[in-house]
Amino acid sequence: MDIDDWRAKIDEVDLRILALLNERARYALEIGKIKKCDRLPLFKPEREQKILERLVAHNPGPLPDAAVRRLFERVLDENRSLEKEIMSGEE
Amino acid sequence: MDIDDWRAKIDEVDLRILALLNERARYALEIGKIKKCDRLPLFKPEREQKILERLVAHNPGPLPDAAVRRLFERVLDENRSLEKEIMSGEE
Repeated sequence: MDIDDWRAKIDEVDLRILALLNERARYALEIGKIKKCDRLPLFKPEREQKILERLVAHNPGPLPDAAVRRLFERVLDENRSLEKEIMSGEE
Repeated sequence: MDIDDWRAKIDEVDLRILALLNERARYALEIGKIKKCDRLPLFKPEREQKILERLVAHNPGPLPDAAVRRLFERVLDENRSLEKEIMSGEE
């Protein structure tokens, strides 16, 4: 395997990650809709903490736990922004 | 589907994303090893730009393109830190 072979594998994995990140965003939007109907707060810090703890507990590496935490903090943050934007557009 | 059902789906997707992020990191480390042997620079901004452009071009949404870019900038950043750390540890 040379650099180009590994890059081809990375490119393939990246598309799968991209698809899953969008799948996750769709689910988060469904939750956002329910929360809006029921007038529940969009941001629930305990749930986000639980998500991060669980992922760190399941982390096989080589990414260090701190990296997993930072990566998913970004995921949660982007999902929250998207929910907020779409929810406010539907007022 | 209620909130808990959607959350269960998110939890399942998150584990798959976690596995793929670690798979990607393993490939990046392989590239790092080759680069070290051949004394090539670890950071190649053109390659990173190409990765981001390609992902934005393939983005099906609902995540906006700017979110995809921010998410993968974090992925690239974490991969670079990991490579740097592991490479220096093997000196």
